[in-house]
Amino acid sequence: MNKGKLFVVSAPSGCGKGTILSEVLKKNKNLFYSVSATTRTPRDGEIDGVNYYFLSKEEFKMEIDNGGMIEYAQYCDNFYGTPKEKVIEKLEQGIDVILEIETNGAMQVKRAMPEAVLIFILPPSVFELRRRLNKRGTEEQDVIDKRVKEAEDEILKAHNYDYIIMNDELDKAIEDFEAILKASKLTNENNKNMIEEVLKNA
Amino acid sequence: MNKGKLFVVSAPSGCGKGTILSEVLKKNKNLFYSVSATTRTPRDGEIDGVNYYFLSKEEFKMEIDNGGMIEYAQYCDNFYGTPKEKVIEKLEQGIDVILEIETNGAMQVKRAMPEAVLIFILPPSVFELRRRLNKRGTEEQDVIDKRVKEAEDEILKAHNYDYIIMNDELDKAIEDFEAILKASKLTNENNKNMIEEVLKNA
Repeated sequence: MNKGKLFVVSAPSGCGKGTILSEVLKKNKNLFYSVSATTRTPRDGEIDGVNYYFLSKEEFKMEIDNGGMIEYAQYCDNFYGTPKEKVIEKLEQGIDVILEIETNGAMQVKRAMPEAVLIFILPPSVFELRRRLNKRGTEEQDVIDKRVKEAEDEILKAHNYDYIIMNDELDKAIEDFEAILKASKLTNENNKNMIEEVLKNA
Repeated sequence: MNKGKLFVVSAPSGCGKGTILSEVLKKNKNLFYSVSATTRTPRDGEIDGVNYYFLSKEEFKMEIDNGGMIEYAQYCDNFYGTPKEKVIEKLEQGIDVILEIETNGAMQVKRAMPEAVLIFILPPSVFELRRRLNKRGTEEQDVIDKRVKEAEDEILKAHNYDYIIMNDELDKAIEDFEAILKASKLTNENNKNMIEEVLKNA
């Protein structure tokens, strides 16, 4: 049996990554979405094991020391990371896994697991991204300015990804995403044993 | 504007390559199917420029000498090849091009144009391939035996291709083919300028 494929998805906030992913996961029931771990306090309504695995700083550091995180980073005095065990287990079972992480984490994953497929979702333009963030109306102007600046820094890192999807139209972006999932399973490296099987049944 | 992408498709005879390609071309009107050139005599109903470009041996050799063939081979005293000019013209116009050629030609293309995407179509098994060839009822047993042997030799070369499609179910094989076409356009190399564009419109 073939091993599962690891997909890593990044996008600046406001690019519609969440919507694309939830649609793709709805339509592809055998994809496993990896839940991240964090040391930050759960917000209202957040459920342990669904939104995040909520760990204490001691637990998180122990996981790091034991090699239990594929990637991790520290933001605002809190740790965020991808627990390794479940991901490896699913891949071994032939199940494809999706990680939704930021660009630094994605680079860590690519170094640790070069066969991972990295997908970056772009907004149509930084101008449009600013418009979307403004439209939400939940943030102050200086927070939006900071978000836009961060987005620009992240977009530059798209150069390190395998695939680029532009989310200028949701349905097209979802189709693009699914084409990447499908094509990645059809690569030669993924199907060496299939060639042998075909020749065996002569 | 992005250049077009070059796709090279090979399959042993009896794998349903013709059906898959005609369906894919029907659904993707902006794909350009490259017509091969040959020195063999046209068969009844074959049209110059549609089935093949029919050239004299002198014309074909002159094209080779002038670097006018992307790849060529000699079978049974006749030449077969892919004229370069039209392919390059379409790629420059941003149009994707499909070459339907055998494995040796595909390897020549990959050497000349490493950015080409090579797709191999597999039968479910050599046993099934033999069944399909028998079912056609147009060939003698020894011809079928020879075809099966040739197919086995070709299938071994699938290891050199970028993608492998198994045609065990026509609709699935067509979907796989289209996913490869789509995903190949979404690679990072294809979209470097898109990243810059997004950042420009700030």
